[in-house]
Amino acid sequence: MIEQALAYVQAHLDEFLDGYKELLRIPSISTDPAYKEELLRCAAWVVAEMERIGLNNCRTLPTAGHPVVYGEWLEAGPDKPTVLVYAHYDVQPVDPLSLWESAPFEPTVREGKLFARGAIDDKSGVWGNLKAFEAMFAADGKLPVNIKVCFEGEEEMASPNMHAFVAANKELLAADAVLLCDGGFKPERPSITYALRGALAAEVTIRGPKKDLHSGAYGGVVHNPLHLAGKIVGSFHDETGRIQIPGYYDAVRALSESESAAMHDNWEQIKDRVMEGSTVDKLWAEPMGTPPERITALPTLDVNGISGGYEGPGIKTIIPSSATFKVTMRLVADQDPEVIAGLFTDHVMSFATDTLDIDVQILAKGWPVTMEFEGPLINAVQTALKATTGLEANLTRGGGSIPIGGMFQQELGAPLTALGVGFGENVHSPNEYLELEHFQTGIDTLLHFYYAYGE
Amino acid sequence: MIEQALAYVQAHLDEFLDGYKELLRIPSISTDPAYKEELLRCAAWVVAEMERIGLNNCRTLPTAGHPVVYGEWLEAGPDKPTVLVYAHYDVQPVDPLSLWESAPFEPTVREGKLFARGAIDDKSGVWGNLKAFEAMFAADGKLPVNIKVCFEGEEEMASPNMHAFVAANKELLAADAVLLCDGGFKPERPSITYALRGALAAEVTIRGPKKDLHSGAYGGVVHNPLHLAGKIVGSFHDETGRIQIPGYYDAVRALSESESAAMHDNWEQIKDRVMEGSTVDKLWAEPMGTPPERITALPTLDVNGISGGYEGPGIKTIIPSSATFKVTMRLVADQDPEVIAGLFTDHVMSFATDTLDIDVQILAKGWPVTMEFEGPLINAVQTALKATTGLEANLTRGGGSIPIGGMFQQELGAPLTALGVGFGENVHSPNEYLELEHFQTGIDTLLHFYYAYGE
Repeated sequence: MIEQALAYVQAHLDEFLDGYKELLRIPSISTDPAYKEELLRCAAWVVAEMERIGLNNCRTLPTAGHPVVYGEWLEAGPDKPTVLVYAHYDVQPVDPLSLWESAPFEPTVREGKLFARGAIDDKSGVWGNLKAFEAMFAADGKLPVNIKVCFEGEEEMASPNMHAFVAANKELLAADAVLLCDGGFKPERPSITYALRGALAAEVTIRGPKKDLHSGAYGGVVHNPLHLAGKIVGSFHDETGRIQIPGYYDAVRALSESESAAMHDNWEQIKDRVMEGSTVDKLWAEPMGTPPERITALPTLDVNGISGGYEGPGIKTIIPSSATFKVTMRLVADQDPEVIAGLFTDHVMSFATDTLDIDVQILAKGWPVTMEFEGPLINAVQTALKATTGLEANLTRGGGSIPIGGMFQQELGAPLTALGVGFGENVHSPNEYLELEHFQTGIDTLLHFYYAYGE
Repeated sequence: MIEQALAYVQAHLDEFLDGYKELLRIPSISTDPAYKEELLRCAAWVVAEMERIGLNNCRTLPTAGHPVVYGEWLEAGPDKPTVLVYAHYDVQPVDPLSLWESAPFEPTVREGKLFARGAIDDKSGVWGNLKAFEAMFAADGKLPVNIKVCFEGEEEMASPNMHAFVAANKELLAADAVLLCDGGFKPERPSITYALRGALAAEVTIRGPKKDLHSGAYGGVVHNPLHLAGKIVGSFHDETGRIQIPGYYDAVRALSESESAAMHDNWEQIKDRVMEGSTVDKLWAEPMGTPPERITALPTLDVNGISGGYEGPGIKTIIPSSATFKVTMRLVADQDPEVIAGLFTDHVMSFATDTLDIDVQILAKGWPVTMEFEGPLINAVQTALKATTGLEANLTRGGGSIPIGGMFQQELGAPLTALGVGFGENVHSPNEYLELEHFQTGIDTLLHFYYAYGE
């Protein structure tokens, strides 16, 4: 049956790409409230496409934020496993817009690359699965496994409402296996991620005078909120890159020697790619561990943005009334995001003074997740990647976070694995793209996975 | 003659106010290149008005930036002194625009206040002088002193091109006295500023990766420019408010005991007003000295703005490619701005690392200035303030800077004094205003000054 399905994909590639561009044109930026209606439009568009393809019970399900897109096809029979397929239809903001070579929501092909916000993160996960289902229905009139689809609309906000959603919908989402499709994979070096970091997001605001003041009239007697913001931001790391929040590393599980060794071997192979992707000449925080340890097995803390006072051209002689900075932390097993949120808040509040107000908001919390390392689910992923790339996939830790992974793990208890769809670059940056030659690879890999897992 | 001049002002007040509103409608924001044409328009408008009033040789004079407005009336005779009158026709930026209760360039009267950007800083200095000249010509057909007018267009940028301009135009600007009209004065508590701080402005940019990176993929191995920006900003002051740049205080001249005592007496009288204006409950840096010392006799360093990375709503998980912050320093005698610029740059560069680039730009440098403390010029100012307020003016140091003061002092060698025109608040803040009842007071005070000094 898989041959017919693969042939169907091959025959419909142009049409699939046209449909994909339609999806990419919807600016589903979840983190910016201005795009709320676009999220609804995107969700409705995906529901309509799922219905057209032949899934059942297709609908949007409300959350406290943007809705989840749900659909299912449970007619493969009770002897076939049920796979809960996860991807997300929301995308990152696009700024700085001026650095995009073509409009982020007008998909544009240049030099074999499809440029658009979301092209690889993560509308490829949404679209690749839908097109795989379509091909399997066309080939066989059915799917080789039972399917439940759960497409999130808030992944780029660190999934603030999904834990409550999953907890409230345990039965609906119950499955034998969970397939997380977020991002892509490198066809020249396929890998299977078996651990992801948790994420904790916070925003700190420091308030001083009730309005911007003239720095000539009040400089020296009014405490400048930017000065304290600097002290706090500057306190997070020492010179070696070690995070200085007391207790931050207490729960970090040490790597086994064998995992350390495997990681080191893997690093030698991916080193050039990481260095190129980093765009820097020299990596940072060498004393903390090897680069793969620092990227995947150690927690991090990054200030993602800071603002306060005059940011225009030239000079403005003010003491600004406030300063704000945003922080995300990546957590590893066994760091409890609740505990780390407390340590972070305590550390920031240790700078409290009677001349400024400090406000800490925790915006999102996600557990680190440890996924399948062996067994039938991993075997099916291995088979699929081998079929399309000709290579054995490495088992690796990932540095990023899919907050939903920890939520599924804690609420559903089903084994998890992750499989990217397609390959591209500039995730979260301007000029995000999908390599067009791997548009088909992504769908084909999913076909191989579903047939292998359904056997 | 002064009675006729005062009567003329009284009779033409509505007309003067209408003209003032016209001037205030021109958005002459010097620091933002987008307003370049508006600066030219403002300068031309002032030239035309000066011609109409009867000054001679009215014209704009080019600088490397926005032009100077020049005009003169030298027919008072060789036995009369020549006064070089300085004010500036440029204004501060208006952001945050959302905090303005009426549009900043649509002058609006509410509760006896005229709200507009520039209403007190410093179009009142421009307009007040022109209307005083007009009234004196109407009363007497002549002025009691010889006048040279020099209205600057770059004061709010810290006068980056004026030193070269003054040095190149020494003869044109030569005078027996220089009257600096920048800002207003409090009619309930008139004062004469005899010292102003210098100003030094810098911008620091820290560059890391060539684009924003995904903090999950590169967190822990790529040095985040915001972290170093925090360390640098956080390093400028200790907990007591003392600036930590080595050598920063070396040239600061200690106050004499009598000046200290006078300052202390004065503080008791202005304390409530400063506390109210500061909008904070508690002042900062108490261990550094008394508040008046900290505001006027000690140098300061304020970060006026910082930006980098994602500043929109919600979360964006990036390592930003760069961070920028702006700094202004207020200098006191005998701090050489050139020397302090070097110390500042050295301090910032002491954070140099091989994982990030640091760039320091010095945007402007101005000497502190010490003006007349006694003599005929001060006597004329005292007479004028006494006439309109009924009170003896205190001699005080000012915390702000008029970079032009140091330039005039060094290049022209003439005695300087400062006389504000009108009274208002929210200088450099949203909702800047001039108190309407003191619109006339400002012009009248100038009339008294010119007649007294010409006697």
